Amino acid sequence: MTADVRGPHFVRSFERGLAVLRAFDADHPARTLSEVARVCGMTRAAARRFLLTLADLGYVHTDGRLFRLTPRVLELGYSYLAGFTLPEIAGPHLEQLVDRVRESSSLCVLDGDDIVYVARVPTRRIMSEAITVGTRFPAHLTSVGRVVLASLPDEEIDARLSRTDLRPHTSHTVVSARALRTELLRVRRQGYALVDQELEEGLRSVAAPVRDRDGTVVAGVNLAVHAGRTSLDSVRRDLLPHLLATVARIEADLNVTGPARAASHDTGTHR
Amino acid sequence: MTADVRGPHFVRSFERGLAVLRAFDADHPARTLSEVARVCGMTRAAARRFLLTLADLGYVHTDGRLFRLTPRVLELGYSYLAGFTLPEIAGPHLEQLVDRVRESSSLCVLDGDDIVYVARVPTRRIMSEAITVGTRFPAHLTSVGRVVLASLPDEEIDARLSRTDLRPHTSHTVVSARALRTELLRVRRQGYALVDQELEEGLRSVAAPVRDRDGTVVAGVNLAVHAGRTSLDSVRRDLLPHLLATVARIEADLNVTGPARAASHDTGTHR
Repeated sequence: MTADVRGPHFVRSFERGLAVLRAFDADHPARTLSEVARVCGMTRAAARRFLLTLADLGYVHTDGRLFRLTPRVLELGYSYLAGFTLPEIAGPHLEQLVDRVRESSSLCVLDGDDIVYVARVPTRRIMSEAITVGTRFPAHLTSVGRVVLASLPDEEIDARLSRTDLRPHTSHTVVSARALRTELLRVRRQGYALVDQELEEGLRSVAAPVRDRDGTVVAGVNLAVHAGRTSLDSVRRDLLPHLLATVARIEADLNVTGPARAASHDTGTHR
Repeated sequence: MTADVRGPHFVRSFERGLAVLRAFDADHPARTLSEVARVCGMTRAAARRFLLTLADLGYVHTDGRLFRLTPRVLELGYSYLAGFTLPEIAGPHLEQLVDRVRESSSLCVLDGDDIVYVARVPTRRIMSEAITVGTRFPAHLTSVGRVVLASLPDEEIDARLSRTDLRPHTSHTVVSARALRTELLRVRRQGYALVDQELEEGLRSVAAPVRDRDGTVVAGVNLAVHAGRTSLDSVRRDLLPHLLATVARIEADLNVTGPARAASHDTGTHR
Protein backbone atom coordinates (compact mmCIF):
# COMPACT_ATOMS: atom_id res chain seq x y z
CA MET A 1 0.00 0.00 0.00
CA THR A 2 1.65 3.20 -1.09
CA ALA A 3 1.35 6.31 1.04
CA ASP A 4 -0.28 8.24 -1.75
CA VAL A 5 -2.43 11.31 -1.39
CA ARG A 6 -5.69 10.54 0.41
CA GLY A 7 -8.83 12.55 0.78
CA PRO A 8 -9.64 14.57 3.89
CA HIS A 9 -11.85 11.71 5.15
CA PHE A 10 -8.87 9.35 5.38
CA VAL A 11 -8.26 7.99 8.90
CA ARG A 12 -4.51 7.45 8.92
CA SER A 13 -4.40 5.79 12.34
CA PHE A 14 -6.90 3.18 11.13
CA GLU A 15 -4.69 2.43 8.12
CA ARG A 16 -1.67 2.09 10.40
CA GLY A 17 -3.54 -0.19 12.80
CA LEU A 18 -4.57 -2.48 9.94
CA ALA A 19 -0.95 -2.59 8.78
CA VAL A 20 0.02 -3.86 12.25
CA LEU A 21 -2.57 -6.65 11.94
CA ARG A 22 -1.14 -7.58 8.54
CA ALA A 23 2.38 -7.82 9.98
CA PHE A 24 1.41 -11.34 11.09
CA ASP A 25 1.19 -14.11 8.50
CA ALA A 26 1.85 -17.80 7.99
CA ASP A 27 5.60 -17.25 8.02
CA HIS A 28 5.47 -14.88 10.99
CA PRO A 29 2.78 -16.05 13.41
CA ALA A 30 4.72 -14.46 16.29
CA ARG A 31 6.49 -11.10 16.20
CA THR A 32 8.36 -8.86 18.61
CA LEU A 33 7.51 -5.19 18.99
CA SER A 34 10.68 -4.24 17.10
CA GLU A 35 9.82 -6.53 14.19
CA VAL A 36 6.31 -5.10 13.90
CA ALA A 37 7.71 -1.55 13.95
CA ARG A 38 10.24 -2.43 11.23
CA VAL A 39 7.77 -4.30 9.00
CA CYS A 40 5.18 -1.51 9.27
CA GLY A 41 7.71 1.31 8.92
CA MET A 42 6.66 3.02 12.14
CA THR A 43 8.33 3.94 15.41
CA ARG A 44 8.44 1.44 18.26
CA ALA A 45 6.22 3.80 20.28
CA ALA A 46 3.57 3.80 17.54
CA ALA A 47 3.74 0.03 16.99
CA ARG A 48 3.40 -0.45 20.75
CA ARG A 49 0.24 1.67 20.91
CA PHE A 50 -1.42 -0.34 18.12
CA LEU A 51 -0.30 -3.71 19.51
CA LEU A 52 -1.56 -2.86 23.00
CA THR A 53 -4.85 -1.62 21.55
CA LEU A 54 -5.19 -4.93 19.71
CA ALA A 55 -4.36 -6.77 22.94
CA ASP A 56 -7.02 -4.76 24.83
CA LEU A 57 -9.55 -5.72 22.17
CA GLY A 58 -8.55 -9.40 22.34
CA TYR A 59 -7.07 -9.61 18.83
CA VAL A 60 -3.49 -10.25 19.92
CA HIS A 61 -1.97 -12.05 22.84
CA THR A 62 1.49 -11.41 24.25
CA ASP A 63 3.79 -13.21 26.64
CA GLY A 64 5.54 -9.89 27.24
CA ARG A 65 7.98 -10.32 24.38
CA LEU A 66 6.26 -12.05 21.46
CA PHE A 67 2.89 -10.98 20.08
CA ARG A 68 0.54 -13.44 18.32
CA LEU A 69 -2.90 -13.11 16.76
CA THR A 70 -5.78 -14.77 18.60
CA PRO A 71 -8.71 -16.55 16.91
CA ARG A 72 -10.73 -13.37 17.45
CA VAL A 73 -9.21 -11.90 14.27
CA LEU A 74 -11.40 -14.38 12.39
CA GLU A 75 -14.25 -11.98 13.20
CA LEU A 76 -12.63 -9.42 10.92
CA GLY A 77 -11.66 -11.43 7.90
CA TYR A 78 -14.06 -14.27 7.94
CA SER A 79 -17.17 -12.14 7.75
CA TYR A 80 -16.49 -11.89 4.03
CA LEU A 81 -16.64 -15.66 3.58
CA ALA A 82 -19.58 -16.01 5.97
CA GLY A 83 -21.71 -13.97 3.58
CA PHE A 84 -20.55 -15.98 0.59
CA THR A 85 -21.87 -19.53 0.16
CA LEU A 86 -19.79 -20.59 -2.85
CA PRO A 87 -16.64 -21.70 -0.95
CA GLU A 88 -18.80 -23.83 1.35
CA ILE A 89 -20.61 -25.40 -1.60
CA ALA A 90 -17.35 -26.04 -3.47
CA GLY A 91 -15.41 -27.47 -0.51
CA PRO A 92 -16.53 -31.12 -0.63
CA HIS A 93 -16.17 -31.21 -4.42
CA LEU A 94 -12.61 -29.88 -4.25
CA GLU A 95 -11.83 -32.55 -1.60
CA GLN A 96 -13.13 -35.29 -3.91
CA LEU A 97 -11.18 -33.92 -6.85
CA VAL A 98 -7.94 -33.79 -4.86
CA ASP A 99 -8.60 -37.31 -3.54
CA ARG A 100 -8.88 -38.52 -7.10
CA VAL A 101 -6.07 -36.69 -8.90
CA ARG A 102 -3.65 -36.08 -5.98
CA GLU A 103 -2.95 -32.47 -6.96
CA SER A 104 -3.89 -29.26 -5.11
CA SER A 105 -7.13 -27.55 -6.08
CA SER A 106 -8.44 -24.09 -5.23
CA LEU A 107 -11.46 -21.86 -5.78
CA CYS A 108 -10.62 -18.23 -6.57
CA VAL A 109 -12.55 -15.03 -7.29
CA LEU A 110 -11.53 -11.84 -9.04
CA ASP A 111 -10.94 -8.79 -6.82
CA GLY A 112 -9.89 -5.77 -8.85
CA ASP A 113 -6.98 -6.98 -10.98
CA ASP A 114 -6.06 -9.85 -8.66
CA ILE A 115 -7.47 -13.26 -8.06
CA VAL A 116 -7.96 -14.23 -4.41
CA TYR A 117 -8.09 -17.76 -3.03
CA VAL A 118 -11.38 -18.34 -1.21
CA ALA A 119 -11.19 -22.14 -0.77
CA ARG A 120 -8.24 -24.44 -1.07
CA VAL A 121 -7.48 -28.15 -0.71
CA PRO A 122 -3.74 -28.85 -0.81
CA THR A 123 -2.21 -32.27 -1.38
CA ARG A 124 -0.04 -33.73 1.32
CA ARG A 125 3.06 -33.76 -0.82
CA ILE A 126 3.09 -30.02 -1.37
CA MET A 127 5.84 -28.28 0.54
CA SER A 128 6.78 -25.15 -1.27
CA GLU A 129 3.44 -23.50 -1.93
CA ALA A 130 2.65 -21.03 0.83
CA ILE A 131 -0.82 -20.41 -0.56
CA THR A 132 -3.78 -20.04 1.77
CA VAL A 133 -7.28 -18.63 1.64
CA GLY A 134 -6.74 -14.89 1.16
CA THR A 135 -3.60 -15.24 -1.00
CA ARG A 136 -3.63 -12.92 -4.06
CA PHE A 137 -1.91 -13.02 -7.45
CA PRO A 138 -2.19 -10.83 -10.54
CA ALA A 139 -5.15 -12.36 -12.38
CA HIS A 140 -3.56 -12.32 -15.83
CA LEU A 141 -0.68 -14.57 -14.70
CA THR A 142 -2.90 -17.37 -13.43
CA SER A 143 -5.15 -19.93 -15.11
CA VAL A 144 -8.01 -19.17 -12.76
CA GLY A 145 -7.65 -15.45 -13.37
CA ARG A 146 -7.70 -16.01 -17.12
CA VAL A 147 -10.95 -17.99 -17.10
CA VAL A 148 -12.64 -15.18 -15.16
CA LEU A 149 -11.08 -12.41 -17.29
CA ALA A 150 -12.06 -14.28 -20.46
CA SER A 151 -15.72 -14.09 -19.42
CA LEU A 152 -15.72 -10.28 -19.39
CA PRO A 153 -16.95 -8.20 -22.34
CA ASP A 154 -14.30 -7.42 -24.96
CA GLU A 155 -14.10 -3.73 -24.05
CA GLU A 156 -13.62 -4.62 -20.38
CA ILE A 157 -10.80 -7.00 -21.34
CA ASP A 158 -9.16 -4.25 -23.41
CA ALA A 159 -9.50 -1.72 -20.59
CA ARG A 160 -7.90 -4.14 -18.15
CA LEU A 161 -5.08 -5.13 -20.50
CA SER A 162 -4.22 -1.47 -21.07
CA ARG A 163 -3.58 -0.98 -17.36
CA THR A 164 -1.96 -4.37 -16.65
CA ASP A 165 1.67 -4.49 -15.58
CA LEU A 166 3.07 -6.96 -18.11
CA ARG A 167 6.55 -7.32 -16.66
CA PRO A 168 7.64 -10.97 -16.82
CA HIS A 169 7.67 -13.11 -13.66
CA THR A 170 9.50 -15.97 -15.38
CA SER A 171 11.03 -16.64 -18.76
CA HIS A 172 7.63 -18.06 -19.81
CA THR A 173 5.46 -15.03 -18.97
CA VAL A 174 3.41 -13.66 -21.88
CA VAL A 175 4.46 -9.99 -21.98
CA SER A 176 2.53 -8.66 -24.96
CA ALA A 177 -0.99 -7.30 -24.44
CA ARG A 178 -1.88 -8.50 -27.90
CA ALA A 179 -0.73 -12.07 -27.24
CA LEU A 180 -2.52 -12.06 -23.90
CA ARG A 181 -5.73 -10.85 -25.55
CA THR A 182 -5.48 -13.66 -28.12
CA GLU A 183 -4.96 -16.16 -25.31
CA LEU A 184 -8.01 -14.85 -23.39
CA LEU A 185 -10.19 -15.23 -26.49
CA ARG A 186 -8.90 -18.79 -26.90
CA VAL A 187 -9.66 -19.50 -23.22
CA ARG A 188 -13.19 -18.17 -23.71
CA ARG A 189 -13.72 -20.51 -26.69
CA GLN A 190 -12.20 -23.64 -25.20
CA GLY A 191 -13.74 -23.20 -21.72
CA TYR A 192 -10.55 -23.63 -19.71
CA ALA A 193 -7.13 -22.01 -19.27
CA LEU A 194 -3.77 -23.66 -19.04
CA VAL A 195 -0.87 -21.57 -17.72
CA ASP A 196 2.62 -22.97 -18.04
CA GLN A 197 5.13 -21.50 -15.58
CA GLU A 198 4.18 -17.87 -16.24
CA LEU A 199 3.74 -16.99 -12.54
CA GLU A 200 6.50 -19.19 -11.14
CA GLU A 201 9.07 -21.48 -12.73
CA GLY A 202 8.05 -25.12 -12.30
CA LEU A 203 4.38 -24.39 -11.67
CA ARG A 204 1.68 -25.37 -14.15
CA SER A 205 -2.03 -24.84 -13.59
CA VAL A 206 -5.29 -25.50 -15.35
CA ALA A 207 -8.58 -23.81 -14.49
CA ALA A 208 -12.24 -23.80 -15.47
CA PRO A 209 -14.89 -21.14 -14.84
CA VAL A 210 -17.78 -21.55 -12.37
CA ARG A 211 -21.04 -20.03 -13.65
CA ASP A 212 -24.11 -19.12 -11.66
CA ARG A 213 -27.66 -19.79 -12.84
CA ASP A 214 -27.56 -16.72 -15.08
CA GLY A 215 -24.42 -17.93 -16.81
CA THR A 216 -22.24 -15.28 -15.16
CA VAL A 217 -18.76 -16.49 -14.26
CA VAL A 218 -18.50 -15.96 -10.48
CA ALA A 219 -15.25 -17.84 -9.75
CA GLY A 220 -12.72 -20.30 -11.14
CA VAL A 221 -11.42 -23.67 -9.94
CA ASN A 222 -7.85 -24.72 -10.63
CA LEU A 223 -5.49 -27.65 -10.30
CA ALA A 224 -1.80 -26.85 -9.78
CA VAL A 225 1.00 -29.27 -10.67
CA HIS A 226 4.79 -29.40 -10.72
CA ALA A 227 6.03 -28.94 -14.27
CA GLY A 228 8.79 -31.49 -13.70
CA ARG A 229 6.30 -34.16 -12.76
CA THR A 230 3.32 -33.53 -15.04
CA SER A 231 3.50 -32.70 -18.75
CA LEU A 232 1.13 -30.31 -20.49
CA ASP A 233 -0.31 -33.31 -22.35
CA SER A 234 -0.96 -35.11 -19.11
CA VAL A 235 -2.66 -32.00 -17.67
CA ARG A 236 -5.05 -31.93 -20.63
CA ARG A 237 -5.61 -35.67 -20.83
CA ASP A 238 -5.54 -36.82 -17.20
CA LEU A 239 -6.57 -33.79 -15.13
CA LEU A 240 -8.79 -31.52 -17.23
CA PRO A 241 -11.73 -34.00 -17.54
CA HIS A 242 -11.86 -34.39 -13.74
CA LEU A 243 -11.66 -30.63 -13.27
CA LEU A 244 -14.54 -30.01 -15.69
CA ALA A 245 -16.65 -32.71 -14.00
CA THR A 246 -15.97 -31.10 -10.60
CA VAL A 247 -17.03 -27.68 -11.83
CA ALA A 248 -20.22 -29.18 -13.26
CA ARG A 249 -21.05 -30.64 -9.83
CA ILE A 250 -20.32 -27.33 -8.09
CA GLU A 251 -22.58 -25.52 -10.55
CA ALA A 252 -25.36 -28.07 -10.03
CA ASP A 253 -25.19 -27.55 -6.25
CA LEU A 254 -25.00 -23.80 -6.68
CA ASN A 255 -28.18 -23.81 -8.73
CA VAL A 256 -30.01 -25.96 -6.19
CA THR A 257 -28.93 -23.83 -3.25
CA GLY A 258 -29.81 -20.70 -5.15
CA PRO A 259 -27.20 -18.28 -6.34
CA ALA A 260 -28.53 -15.29 -4.40
CA ARG A 261 -25.69 -14.87 -1.98
CA ALA A 262 -22.97 -16.16 -4.22
CA ALA A 263 -24.11 -13.90 -7.00
CA SER A 264 -24.29 -10.92 -4.67
CA HIS A 265 -20.53 -11.17 -4.44
CA ASP A 266 -18.58 -8.45 -6.21
CA THR A 267 -16.37 -10.10 -8.79
CA GLY A 268 -14.82 -6.79 -9.62
CA THR A 269 -16.55 -6.43 -12.95
CA HIS A 270 -18.64 -3.44 -11.90
CA ARG A 271 -16.95 -0.54 -10.21
CA MET B 1 -17.01 -4.33 23.35
CA THR B 2 -17.81 -1.95 26.21
CA ALA B 3 -16.39 1.55 26.20
CA ASP B 4 -14.54 0.97 29.45
CA VAL B 5 -11.52 2.83 30.70
CA ARG B 6 -8.47 2.18 28.52
CA GLY B 7 -4.83 3.01 29.07
CA PRO B 8 -3.18 6.06 27.53
CA HIS B 9 -1.80 3.89 24.71
CA PHE B 10 -5.31 3.06 23.48
CA VAL B 11 -5.97 4.15 19.87
CA ARG B 12 -9.70 4.86 19.92
CA SER B 13 -9.98 5.51 16.16
CA PHE B 14 -8.46 2.06 15.48
CA GLU B 15 -11.06 0.46 17.76
CA ARG B 16 -13.83 2.37 15.96
CA GLY B 17 -12.53 1.37 12.54
CA LEU B 18 -12.46 -2.29 13.52
CA ALA B 19 -16.06 -1.95 14.75
CA VAL B 20 -17.02 -0.72 11.29
CA LEU B 21 -15.41 -3.82 9.73
CA ARG B 22 -17.35 -6.02 12.15
CA ALA B 23 -20.64 -4.36 11.16
CA PHE B 24 -20.65 -6.75 8.19
CA ASP B 25 -21.50 -10.41 8.76
CA ALA B 26 -23.26 -13.38 7.18
CA ASP B 27 -26.68 -11.81 7.82
CA HIS B 28 -25.56 -8.35 6.69
CA PRO B 29 -23.14 -8.71 3.77
CA ALA B 30 -24.23 -5.29 2.48
CA ARG B 31 -24.95 -2.22 4.62
CA THR B 32 -25.84 1.41 4.03
CA LEU B 33 -23.91 4.22 5.69
CA SER B 34 -26.82 4.84 8.07
CA GLU B 35 -26.94 1.20 9.11
CA VAL B 36 -23.22 1.10 9.83
CA ALA B 37 -23.51 4.29 11.88
CA ARG B 38 -26.40 2.85 13.89
CA VAL B 39 -24.81 -0.59 14.45
CA CYS B 40 -21.51 0.97 15.54
CA GLY B 41 -23.11 3.69 17.65
CA MET B 42 -21.32 6.50 15.83
CA THR B 43 -22.35 9.54 13.81
CA ARG B 44 -22.91 9.24 10.08
CA ALA B 45 -19.93 11.51 9.51
CA ALA B 46 -17.66 9.22 11.53
CA ALA B 47 -18.98 6.04 9.89
CA ARG B 48 -18.47 7.66 6.50
CA ARG B 49 -14.81 8.47 7.24
CA PHE B 50 -14.09 4.87 8.27
CA LEU B 51 -16.00 3.36 5.34
CA LEU B 52 -14.24 5.59 2.82
CA THR B 53 -10.89 4.78 4.41
CA LEU B 54 -11.70 1.07 4.04
CA ALA B 55 -12.73 1.70 0.42
CA ASP B 56 -9.44 3.53 -0.26
CA LEU B 57 -7.55 0.55 1.17
CA GLY B 58 -9.58 -1.93 -0.93
CA TYR B 59 -11.37 -3.61 1.98
CA VAL B 60 -14.85 -2.44 1.06
CA HIS B 61 -16.55 -1.74 -2.21
CA THR B 62 -19.53 0.55 -2.69
CA ASP B 63 -22.04 1.16 -5.46
CA GLY B 64 -22.67 4.59 -3.93
CA ARG B 65 -25.39 3.38 -1.57
CA LEU B 66 -24.51 -0.11 -0.29
CA PHE B 67 -21.13 -1.04 1.13
CA ARG B 68 -19.77 -4.62 0.97
CA LEU B 69 -16.56 -6.25 2.14
CA THR B 70 -14.13 -7.35 -0.58
CA PRO B 71 -12.04 -10.54 -0.48
CA ARG B 72 -9.13 -8.37 0.66
CA VAL B 73 -10.42 -8.55 4.24
CA LEU B 74 -9.24 -12.16 4.21
CA GLU B 75 -5.74 -10.69 4.62
CA LEU B 76 -6.74 -9.50 8.07
CA GLY B 77 -8.51 -12.47 9.55
CA TYR B 78 -7.05 -15.36 7.69
CA SER B 79 -3.49 -14.74 8.78
CA TYR B 80 -4.42 -16.42 12.04
CA LEU B 81 -5.42 -19.64 10.27
CA ALA B 82 -2.51 -19.44 7.86
CA GLY B 83 -0.11 -19.79 10.79
CA PHE B 84 -2.06 -22.68 12.25
CA THR B 85 -1.88 -26.07 10.50
CA LEU B 86 -4.46 -27.94 12.59
CA PRO B 87 -7.58 -26.84 10.66
CA GLU B 88 -5.92 -27.85 7.39
CA ILE B 89 -4.95 -31.23 8.82
CA ALA B 90 -8.40 -31.82 10.28
CA GLY B 91 -10.40 -30.72 7.20
CA PRO B 92 -10.37 -33.95 5.15
CA HIS B 93 -11.12 -36.02 8.27
CA LEU B 94 -14.10 -33.86 9.16
CA GLU B 95 -15.37 -34.22 5.56
CA GLN B 96 -15.13 -38.03 5.83
CA LEU B 97 -16.90 -38.02 9.19
CA VAL B 98 -19.75 -35.87 7.86
CA ASP B 99 -20.00 -38.07 4.76
CA ARG B 100 -20.44 -41.07 7.01
CA VAL B 101 -22.77 -39.82 9.74
CA ARG B 102 -24.60 -37.02 7.87
CA GLU B 103 -24.34 -34.56 10.75
CA SER B 104 -22.34 -31.32 10.94
CA SER B 105 -18.85 -31.46 12.45
CA SER B 106 -16.52 -28.67 13.57
CA LEU B 107 -13.06 -28.12 15.00
CA CYS B 108 -12.88 -25.49 17.76
CA VAL B 109 -10.21 -23.97 19.97
CA LEU B 110 -10.42 -22.16 23.28
CA ASP B 111 -9.88 -18.37 23.20
CA GLY B 112 -10.23 -16.84 26.63
CA ASP B 113 -13.55 -18.11 27.99
CA ASP B 114 -15.03 -18.80 24.55
CA ILE B 115 -14.62 -21.52 22.01
CA VAL B 116 -14.05 -20.39 18.43
CA TYR B 117 -14.83 -22.42 15.31
CA VAL B 118 -11.67 -22.83 13.20
CA ALA B 119 -12.89 -25.49 10.73
CA ARG B 120 -16.41 -26.59 9.94
CA VAL B 121 -18.15 -29.04 7.63
CA PRO B 122 -21.94 -28.55 7.64
CA THR B 123 -24.43 -31.10 6.34
CA ARG B 124 -26.64 -30.15 3.48
CA ARG B 125 -29.83 -30.41 5.49
CA ILE B 126 -28.83 -27.77 8.01
CA MET B 127 -30.82 -24.58 7.67
CA SER B 128 -30.96 -22.87 11.01
CA GLU B 129 -27.35 -22.93 12.16
CA ALA B 130 -25.62 -19.71 11.19
CA ILE B 131 -22.28 -21.01 12.40
CA THR B 132 -19.11 -20.29 10.42
CA VAL B 133 -15.38 -20.27 11.03
CA GLY B 134 -14.88 -17.47 13.57
CA THR B 135 -18.18 -18.01 15.42
CA ARG B 136 -17.77 -17.92 19.22
CA PHE B 137 -19.78 -19.37 22.11
CA PRO B 138 -19.18 -19.45 25.86
CA ALA B 139 -16.99 -22.54 26.28
CA HIS B 140 -18.84 -23.96 29.30
CA LEU B 141 -22.13 -24.25 27.34
CA THR B 142 -20.67 -26.37 24.53
CA SER B 143 -19.44 -29.96 24.31
CA VAL B 144 -16.26 -28.91 22.55
CA GLY B 145 -15.60 -26.23 25.18
CA ARG B 146 -16.07 -28.78 27.95
CA VAL B 147 -13.54 -31.25 26.55
CA VAL B 148 -10.94 -28.49 26.37
CA LEU B 149 -11.83 -27.04 29.81
CA ALA B 150 -11.76 -30.55 31.33
CA SER B 151 -8.12 -30.89 30.25
CA LEU B 152 -7.01 -27.92 32.36
CA PRO B 153 -5.52 -28.29 35.84
CA ASP B 154 -8.08 -28.37 38.68
CA GLU B 155 -7.13 -24.92 40.00
CA GLU B 156 -7.49 -23.44 36.52
CA ILE B 157 -10.95 -24.99 36.21
CA ASP B 158 -11.93 -23.53 39.59
CA ALA B 159 -10.61 -20.08 38.64
CA ARG B 160 -12.58 -20.16 35.41
CA LEU B 161 -15.78 -21.41 37.03
CA SER B 162 -15.60 -18.63 39.61
CA ARG B 163 -15.69 -16.00 36.87
CA THR B 164 -18.15 -17.76 34.52
CA ASP B 165 -21.53 -16.19 33.89
CA LEU B 166 -23.82 -19.12 34.70
CA ARG B 167 -27.09 -17.57 33.57
CA PRO B 168 -29.20 -20.18 31.76
CA HIS B 169 -29.53 -20.09 27.98
CA THR B 170 -32.27 -22.73 27.94
CA SER B 171 -34.28 -24.70 30.51
CA HIS B 172 -31.55 -27.37 30.29
CA THR B 173 -28.51 -25.18 31.11
CA VAL B 174 -26.47 -26.33 34.12
CA VAL B 175 -26.42 -23.21 36.31
CA SER B 176 -24.48 -24.40 39.37
CA ALA B 177 -20.69 -24.08 39.39
CA ARG B 178 -20.54 -27.20 41.51
CA ALA B 179 -22.59 -29.28 39.07
CA LEU B 180 -20.54 -27.95 36.18
CA ARG B 181 -17.31 -28.85 37.96
CA THR B 182 -18.60 -32.40 38.53
CA GLU B 183 -19.54 -32.63 34.86
CA LEU B 184 -16.06 -31.44 33.74
CA LEU B 185 -14.39 -34.10 35.90
CA ARG B 186 -16.69 -36.71 34.37
CA VAL B 187 -15.81 -35.45 30.87
CA ARG B 188 -12.12 -35.72 31.72
CA ARG B 189 -12.58 -39.36 32.84
CA GLN B 190 -14.77 -40.50 29.97
CA GLY B 191 -12.84 -38.69 27.20
CA TYR B 192 -15.81 -36.97 25.59
CA ALA B 193 -18.55 -34.46 26.42
CA LEU B 194 -22.23 -34.64 25.57
CA VAL B 195 -24.24 -31.42 25.91
CA ASP B 196 -28.00 -31.67 25.67
CA GLN B 197 -29.73 -28.42 24.66
CA GLU B 198 -27.85 -26.23 27.17
CA LEU B 199 -26.81 -23.64 24.57
CA GLU B 200 -29.92 -23.77 22.40
CA GLU B 201 -33.21 -25.69 22.67
CA GLY B 202 -33.25 -28.57 20.20
CA LEU B 203 -29.46 -28.73 19.76
CA ARG B 204 -27.40 -31.66 21.05
CA SER B 205 -23.68 -32.01 20.58
CA VAL B 206 -20.94 -34.45 21.39
CA ALA B 207 -17.22 -33.62 21.36
CA ALA B 208 -13.83 -35.24 21.86
CA PRO B 209 -10.47 -33.60 22.61
CA VAL B 210 -7.60 -33.39 20.10
CA ARG B 211 -4.19 -33.86 21.73
CA ASP B 212 -0.79 -32.95 20.34
CA ARG B 213 2.27 -35.16 20.64
CA ASP B 214 2.86 -33.99 24.21
CA GLY B 215 -0.66 -34.98 25.23
CA THR B 216 -1.81 -31.37 25.53
CA VAL B 217 -5.38 -30.79 24.39
CA VAL B 218 -5.12 -28.19 21.59
CA ALA B 219 -8.68 -28.31 20.22
CA GLY B 220 -11.92 -30.26 20.19
CA VAL B 221 -14.02 -31.83 17.44
CA ASN B 222 -17.80 -31.98 17.72
CA LEU B 223 -20.86 -33.39 16.00
CA ALA B 224 -24.08 -31.40 16.33
CA VAL B 225 -27.53 -32.97 15.95
CA HIS B 226 -31.17 -31.96 16.22
CA ALA B 227 -32.60 -33.23 19.50
CA GLY B 228 -35.91 -34.08 17.85
CA ARG B 229 -34.21 -36.37 15.38
CA THR B 230 -31.41 -38.02 17.35
CA SER B 231 -31.72 -39.38 20.91
CA LEU B 232 -28.93 -39.17 23.47
CA ASP B 233 -28.61 -42.96 23.23
CA SER B 234 -28.19 -42.75 19.48
CA VAL B 235 -25.53 -40.05 19.87
CA ARG B 236 -23.53 -42.33 22.17
CA ARG B 237 -24.09 -45.53 20.21
CA ASP B 238 -24.12 -44.38 16.56
CA LEU B 239 -22.07 -41.17 16.46
CA LEU B 240 -19.52 -41.23 19.28
CA PRO B 241 -17.46 -44.18 17.91
CA HIS B 242 -17.06 -42.42 14.54
CA LEU B 243 -16.14 -39.17 16.27
CA LEU B 244 -13.45 -40.87 18.37
CA ALA B 245 -12.05 -42.65 15.31
CA THR B 246 -11.89 -39.32 13.44
CA VAL B 247 -10.02 -37.64 16.28
CA ALA B 248 -7.54 -40.54 16.37
CA ARG B 249 -6.85 -40.03 12.66
CA ILE B 250 -6.41 -36.27 13.11
CA GLU B 251 -3.98 -36.87 15.98
CA ALA B 252 -2.01 -39.39 13.89
CA ASP B 253 -1.66 -36.84 11.06
CA LEU B 254 -0.80 -34.09 13.54
CA ASN B 255 2.03 -36.18 14.95
CA VAL B 256 3.41 -36.98 11.52
CA THR B 257 3.28 -33.37 10.36
CA GLY B 258 4.86 -32.21 13.59
CA PRO B 259 2.90 -30.23 16.13
CA ALA B 260 5.21 -27.21 16.12
CA ARG B 261 2.86 -24.69 14.57
CA ALA B 262 -0.33 -26.17 15.87
CA ALA B 263 1.07 -26.31 19.39
CA SER B 264 2.35 -22.74 19.16
CA HIS B 265 -1.28 -21.70 19.14
CA ASP B 266 -2.51 -19.98 22.28
CA THR B 267 -5.34 -22.08 23.68
CA GLY B 268 -5.97 -19.49 26.34
CA THR B 269 -4.51 -21.51 29.18
CA HIS B 270 -1.68 -19.07 29.80
CA ARG B 271 -2.50 -15.41 30.16
